[in-house]
Amino acid sequence: MVGYLVKQAKVSNNVIRRLPRYLRKLDELKAAGVDRISSGELGRQMGLTSSQIRQDFSCFGEFGQQGYGYNVTGLRGEIASILGMNRDFSVILVGVGNIGRAMIENFCFEQYGFHLVAAYDVRPEVVGTDISGIRVHDISELPRIFDTSRVDLAVLSVPKLIANKAARELVEHGVKGIWNFTNVELDIAESEAIVENIHFSDSLLALGYYLSEKLDSEAAAAAKNARQ
Amino acid sequence: MVGYLVKQAKVSNNVIRRLPRYLRKLDELKAAGVDRISSGELGRQMGLTSSQIRQDFSCFGEFGQQGYGYNVTGLRGEIASILGMNRDFSVILVGVGNIGRAMIENFCFEQYGFHLVAAYDVRPEVVGTDISGIRVHDISELPRIFDTSRVDLAVLSVPKLIANKAARELVEHGVKGIWNFTNVELDIAESEAIVENIHFSDSLLALGYYLSEKLDSEAAAAAKNARQ
Repeated sequence: MVGYLVKQAKVSNNVIRRLPRYLRKLDELKAAGVDRISSGELGRQMGLTSSQIRQDFSCFGEFGQQGYGYNVTGLRGEIASILGMNRDFSVILVGVGNIGRAMIENFCFEQYGFHLVAAYDVRPEVVGTDISGIRVHDISELPRIFDTSRVDLAVLSVPKLIANKAARELVEHGVKGIWNFTNVELDIAESEAIVENIHFSDSLLALGYYLSEKLDSEAAAAAKNARQ
Repeated sequence: MVGYLVKQAKVSNNVIRRLPRYLRKLDELKAAGVDRISSGELGRQMGLTSSQIRQDFSCFGEFGQQGYGYNVTGLRGEIASILGMNRDFSVILVGVGNIGRAMIENFCFEQYGFHLVAAYDVRPEVVGTDISGIRVHDISELPRIFDTSRVDLAVLSVPKLIANKAARELVEHGVKGIWNFTNVELDIAESEAIVENIHFSDSLLALGYYLSEKLDSEAAAAAKNARQ
């Protein structure tokens, strides 16, 4: 495999967003025992053109070999590295409600290169407990972790009303990124922190579009049958 | 406002995925008292080019007027209608764990044109309870709802191990779409149901990319300062 990790000027967000999809597909291919794959076949399986795939990867160097295709394991490693999966980012979680608890209990941060170190809440019934090995501290103890550790990322899963206040406190302490589950557009533009929003509604609305299309075509087919 | 809801042949998935973002931006503009906006300004605020915006909307007809721009309320209404937000889709939720409970308690289905009617689980401690007005039934009662109601969508938030079994049962009963929170790639390709996956990991991995980029540039700046 010929591969150079050469990051060029500015890679478009659309390309970045496709990298995790490539990763999932390559994991699937590996699990199925596939060693190498052409850009054409990879495209067919992912609903992309082969030229789009070659263009995506060309942002980071050359990952394939003419007439040979991609080495699945090698390409997977390159993409994992581009995504920073080998960096062991340290993570805290703020707000141990339903979503926060679900992420602690069920989401495998380690698998993606992130290491969850602590959680914070205000409610006496959760403060001081351990959830899947993660201690829940009182939010008043938050400043202390920054004395001893670098915190790369905070998962923000507090109630809407305090989302901005909590986000501002986190970036003032030097958190580099916020994974935002609050459904509030955070107003922390003056900081340089990276905000990544989980927008459940965007996903549901796209689904609504496709459902509408399906129901319309079923209704049209039924009307046609009725006329015959 | 000149607007015709003319769906053309096949609108690309990328365009569909941008529609919820337009909707959020237009809601924000409405809330800020903005009545109309040019494609150039809308693009600037969303990180898109004005020609991309005009091209996106041209998939559905003509929404703007030359030299006038878009009427914010009118455009918002057109997009809501394209997304099926006026259709009152009926929804059931299967699997009342942390994520399922969070969606019942905190996610406003109604706001997006969906109507949550019932939830299902197997655990005695939740079956028979009401969560935010939604009754949790034993999963054995699932078939009964299909005798009396049309179910458009199922939110699937069961444990991984039973994800495929539950999905197959749902589509056999005629559910048209599955909103999949299980992090399992569902193997129901033989059905015509629409599957929309919530991939938390895709979001975290993209965040990891941007974090890496940020940490690298901070390290480079620090190294440069140290040399001076």
